[in-house]
Amino acid sequence: MTDAAVRTPATPEPKDAVAVPSTAVGTGPRIDVPRVTDALLGTWADTRRQSRALIKDPAFWRIEGLSLAEQRERVLTQLHLLAKNGGSNRAMPKEYGGLEDNGANLAGFEELVLADPSLQIKSGVQWGLFGAAILQLGTKVHHDAWLRDVISLELPGAFAMTETGHGSDVAAIGTTATYDPETQEFVIHTPFRGAWKDYLGNAALHGRAATVFAQLITGGVNYGVHCFFVPLRDEQGEFLPGIGGEDDGVKGGLNGIDNGRLHFDHVRIPRQNLLNRYGDVAEDGSYTSPIASPGRRFFTMLGQLVQGRVSLDGAATWGAALALDIAITYANQRRQFDNGAGTPEVVLLDYGKHQRRLLPRLAQVYAQAFAHEELLQKFDGVFSGRTDTSEEREDLETLAAALKPLSTWNALDTIQEAREACGGAGFLAENRLVGLHHDLDVYVTFEGDNNVLLQLVGKRLLSDYAKQFKGKDAAALARFAAVQAAGKAFHGAGLRQLGQTVGDLGSSARSVVRGLRGDQQQELLADRVQQMVADVAARLRPAAKLPAAESAALFSANQADLIEAARAHGELLQWEAFTDGIARVADPDTREVLTWLRDLLGLTLIEKHLSWYLINGRLSVKRAATVSQYIGRLCARLRAHAQDLVDAFGYEPEHVRAPIASGAELARQTEAHDYYAALESSGEAPVSEKTLPRRP
Amino acid sequence: MTDAAVRTPATPEPKDAVAVPSTAVGTGPRIDVPRVTDALLGTWADTRRQSRALIKDPAFWRIEGLSLAEQRERVLTQLHLLAKNGGSNRAMPKEYGGLEDNGANLAGFEELVLADPSLQIKSGVQWGLFGAAILQLGTKVHHDAWLRDVISLELPGAFAMTETGHGSDVAAIGTTATYDPETQEFVIHTPFRGAWKDYLGNAALHGRAATVFAQLITGGVNYGVHCFFVPLRDEQGEFLPGIGGEDDGVKGGLNGIDNGRLHFDHVRIPRQNLLNRYGDVAEDGSYTSPIASPGRRFFTMLGQLVQGRVSLDGAATWGAALALDIAITYANQRRQFDNGAGTPEVVLLDYGKHQRRLLPRLAQVYAQAFAHEELLQKFDGVFSGRTDTSEEREDLETLAAALKPLSTWNALDTIQEAREACGGAGFLAENRLVGLHHDLDVYVTFEGDNNVLLQLVGKRLLSDYAKQFKGKDAAALARFAAVQAAGKAFHGAGLRQLGQTVGDLGSSARSVVRGLRGDQQQELLADRVQQMVADVAARLRPAAKLPAAESAALFSANQADLIEAARAHGELLQWEAFTDGIARVADPDTREVLTWLRDLLGLTLIEKHLSWYLINGRLSVKRAATVSQYIGRLCARLRAHAQDLVDAFGYEPEHVRAPIASGAELARQTEAHDYYAALESSGEAPVSEKTLPRRP
Repeated sequence: MTDAAVRTPATPEPKDAVAVPSTAVGTGPRIDVPRVTDALLGTWADTRRQSRALIKDPAFWRIEGLSLAEQRERVLTQLHLLAKNGGSNRAMPKEYGGLEDNGANLAGFEELVLADPSLQIKSGVQWGLFGAAILQLGTKVHHDAWLRDVISLELPGAFAMTETGHGSDVAAIGTTATYDPETQEFVIHTPFRGAWKDYLGNAALHGRAATVFAQLITGGVNYGVHCFFVPLRDEQGEFLPGIGGEDDGVKGGLNGIDNGRLHFDHVRIPRQNLLNRYGDVAEDGSYTSPIASPGRRFFTMLGQLVQGRVSLDGAATWGAALALDIAITYANQRRQFDNGAGTPEVVLLDYGKHQRRLLPRLAQVYAQAFAHEELLQKFDGVFSGRTDTSEEREDLETLAAALKPLSTWNALDTIQEAREACGGAGFLAENRLVGLHHDLDVYVTFEGDNNVLLQLVGKRLLSDYAKQFKGKDAAALARFAAVQAAGKAFHGAGLRQLGQTVGDLGSSARSVVRGLRGDQQQELLADRVQQMVADVAARLRPAAKLPAAESAALFSANQADLIEAARAHGELLQWEAFTDGIARVADPDTREVLTWLRDLLGLTLIEKHLSWYLINGRLSVKRAATVSQYIGRLCARLRAHAQDLVDAFGYEPEHVRAPIASGAELARQTEAHDYYAALESSGEAPVSEKTLPRRP
Repeated sequence: MTDAAVRTPATPEPKDAVAVPSTAVGTGPRIDVPRVTDALLGTWADTRRQSRALIKDPAFWRIEGLSLAEQRERVLTQLHLLAKNGGSNRAMPKEYGGLEDNGANLAGFEELVLADPSLQIKSGVQWGLFGAAILQLGTKVHHDAWLRDVISLELPGAFAMTETGHGSDVAAIGTTATYDPETQEFVIHTPFRGAWKDYLGNAALHGRAATVFAQLITGGVNYGVHCFFVPLRDEQGEFLPGIGGEDDGVKGGLNGIDNGRLHFDHVRIPRQNLLNRYGDVAEDGSYTSPIASPGRRFFTMLGQLVQGRVSLDGAATWGAALALDIAITYANQRRQFDNGAGTPEVVLLDYGKHQRRLLPRLAQVYAQAFAHEELLQKFDGVFSGRTDTSEEREDLETLAAALKPLSTWNALDTIQEAREACGGAGFLAENRLVGLHHDLDVYVTFEGDNNVLLQLVGKRLLSDYAKQFKGKDAAALARFAAVQAAGKAFHGAGLRQLGQTVGDLGSSARSVVRGLRGDQQQELLADRVQQMVADVAARLRPAAKLPAAESAALFSANQADLIEAARAHGELLQWEAFTDGIARVADPDTREVLTWLRDLLGLTLIEKHLSWYLINGRLSVKRAATVSQYIGRLCARLRAHAQDLVDAFGYEPEHVRAPIASGAELARQTEAHDYYAALESSGEAPVSEKTLPRRP
């Protein structure tokens, strides 16, 4: 079935077939598709293209309908194939055969989502988590011992951090690693059921070892969570003594990965198996660390693992792009219902509602691609050591925490809308949309639950906000308080103190034509972030003086707003990255079309939060009333460019593989059209009952 | 695994365990859970309870991880078991062993979603589509010939309406049934690939016959779409001559059903196989029908099949209720992060954001249950013949078209939020949320694509609106025009002409405390529907005078707004049904809590559309600013009732079957709590590094 979908159809190409004009091609500017592809692929375009070329091999494709065991076996085989083809060493030290190219590593990894998300995530488990823990948390002795075998997949491993009882709150995990100076061993132990390690890829079947996070206890002191290398299975795949586990069984997706549970009954490992870059225990049991603060040490260790979030931001974006490629290509060929104008049935994408469903999501995916490029550059800067400062690290973590939730949620939303826009055909596994949704579902809660990540971003925004006033004198604080009071007043009155913003909007008639300019969009989006943070900060200010329980209640009451402020921050970042990306485009026609697409994003975001802008006096009622109309106009204008814009993702038939996006639908339309035309000209077509004289 | 999940845990019950106070139980009114269950189960509560009792048998449960072939075989076996246990005859005529109870039939059918949605939908294909086509579109000769075997499942069949090329636009299907007076046969034929029947349950494997929809052609005239009984397979399961097909393969869900494609190469069937209730062909080929208008005849035939939509509204509601039962039960036991108050970690449902995620959706599901009860009563009235008028039929179809989209979309939204709220555990198939999402996904596009259905509702609203002015004199029209002009003015100015609405809102301080009263919610919701319809009508008015292509373009530009107006109509209907349902509750405490829940629904809907209310002058900025705060307060107040409210769905462990909602999480929490308490009292607990004196 997939073969048929991929084969270039022997039927007419879209451009020649069914010579019925639709609004598919306009007369205005067209984008330069290859140049846009270059822009979207970004700094590591070469690696992305290598990765895409590799996965044109059907051996890497997700196959539907395999049993759980078959899927797991297939993905393991794919992983070996990937290792043989340079897919596992890009981030690794040159000493062990690696390329030491962190940005390229994630770029290449992200593209695997097009082949099979199970392959992507299982390779992420092996090299991005298990291997990266050894690399980033271990030292040379660990690298020498294991990295080569990790890269070659001689040593498949699990990353044992999450427990059944604790996911996001890693600091509270229950597994203990107690040092025994008698034998110079750590004793890894699971004290209760909630402390079982859970949801771990490679744990149910293939993992021969694991990097286990546990509370390090030595000399009667708990030094907090550290990571240990723990062998799991012997050569026959049997658990070693003291180790047990369970299979997590069928999941909502990613069933090519053998997720499972692990527990440890006083399992002894050598002292040297502590990955000791940030904390070590000497033979006598004394603890040392280059980072004195337990809190900072913990977050430094966890911060090494940010690449998971970075790469999911990219993978989710490319997955959503694939869904739009399929749905928009189909919508450009599929016809349904005639419009009474005597022409053939209408192409789906000519319906206003269909445009509204797909085109704003296309704008969103473009913004994500540009934002991800910035994130990846920042990541590469920090991890290559070029810009490895604590400020840059903190920015990187905040940026990843802001972007990963938005892109992974948007992926699910976009894939689902794409699937619905393809109707029953969209529900068939062969057309890939349902499988993409199943597999990417968990992206929103793993590697940091999206709401928890946004809350982290919100807290960072609050702390940055507070810093403005740190060390300020009384006069400055008084000025701040006055502004705040003014803010409160206009909140109630619906009129903003910054009169000029409302003043420059002009008549609503003109604004429908011109929409909101880029700088106006930027101001509205940025202003909203600032005001929301200031509002939450003001409401949380009493918390410091309250008893802990009341303080917690106050926080809880403001939690949803804080998360919403963080989301607004992420939206602004994506909008700005899109805008900056367009500025780098040389071709004026391309720039013009992409600017419309950016405007569609901006206006869609403003429409989504329109009540906030009205309540907070940022938009007049007149102006607000025009936003939706302008979105409709932008959709209609961009409709002619929709195919170019998805073509610019650069996917080849071997990446798309959905029969409905292969040209088959167009061939069917042409065949039906020709059949009716031939029947008509044969003179043998039945007449419609409706044309008969009415019976009495 | 499921067994363990269902077994009553030997661990403490929620009420006794971990004696840590949360806000789970308040001191105010409590609902009378059994009485609320009665209200939710509605008129056909007895049948629902019978159906629920039957599916406590594990033979009916969805099993995870089966191969496609195994799933299909299992569901076929379940279907036989259902037929043996009275699950197939409720709607059928007494003459053939039926009960002639249409309402009970759908009520019992809907509950099957709890066992396995594949079982539900496959039984719907057999008895609600294939069987119902014979019953509703056929006459006594057809009933005598096939109904007994349909009921007993001796004769499994497919419902062959949709084609690859035409889904929602049934009138345009390509399959032909040409009458041959020589042999007194119809020739069923598929003229091109797009006219293959597609997505048909029972077509890939089990169907022995099909009710095939085709263009009826006799004497050179096409009388439009009619339904024909066509044998498909012999006793050995082989296709009969001239019939071919394909398997649709793996789908996004419902993989217990063998969906497939069918095509016909000049297949001859006896003249009598035309299901001839609404149109017949005599031996000589002359056509007769009790309904002269081809259009009305077509819609009458299709209208017989409304029960699919009615039942999906109910099934989606009970499926969403199950998801909330699982997620809220878990959120009431699961703890994560301490709040710094020295108490144990916080129960998820005590987080403001978690309340915001789950409780408005609980309100929505309650509203759906009450609205569905009204829909089911209307359906039963029409189909029993008690209230079978053309007005009632039209109302029934509009109501079903308004409610089914909302409840099926809400089901996906709610199930997804529930799955995310359960984190990694929610992604495991054993906890059922992912399977529910997979299976219910297609509910939003089958039995009428949701957007197409809402567009139908929108057109009905437009036509009802136009009727107000039909036959009115010039003075009335002038008055109408004046009101319209006034409407336009206030749209721009942001001030409504009905000053009293804004006038009675009082101070925002008071409104935060009191929210919006029920009558205010109703007025806001109802007013929005009216105004949106009037707005679209005004914008479409020029269409009648435009050339067809321009008229179509004008409609397309307003399509999204028309669909939005229909959605607003459905939301109002659900809100009103909830309100009426509460009025029937006798117990004042129950009524009070349910009224809070209804308020939460109303305020959530108003918040969702807040920018509309502001732009259209229905709410002052002051008032609008309080809506979100009031939702937060309502959530906090309802939090104590959340468990009661999901318990009132009346599900037993055999219906829930999710280990995370079985008490296992609470047992784990208790075990961990006891472990740490014992360690602490033993005096051997390690001290935290943080308590040590800071090293220099």
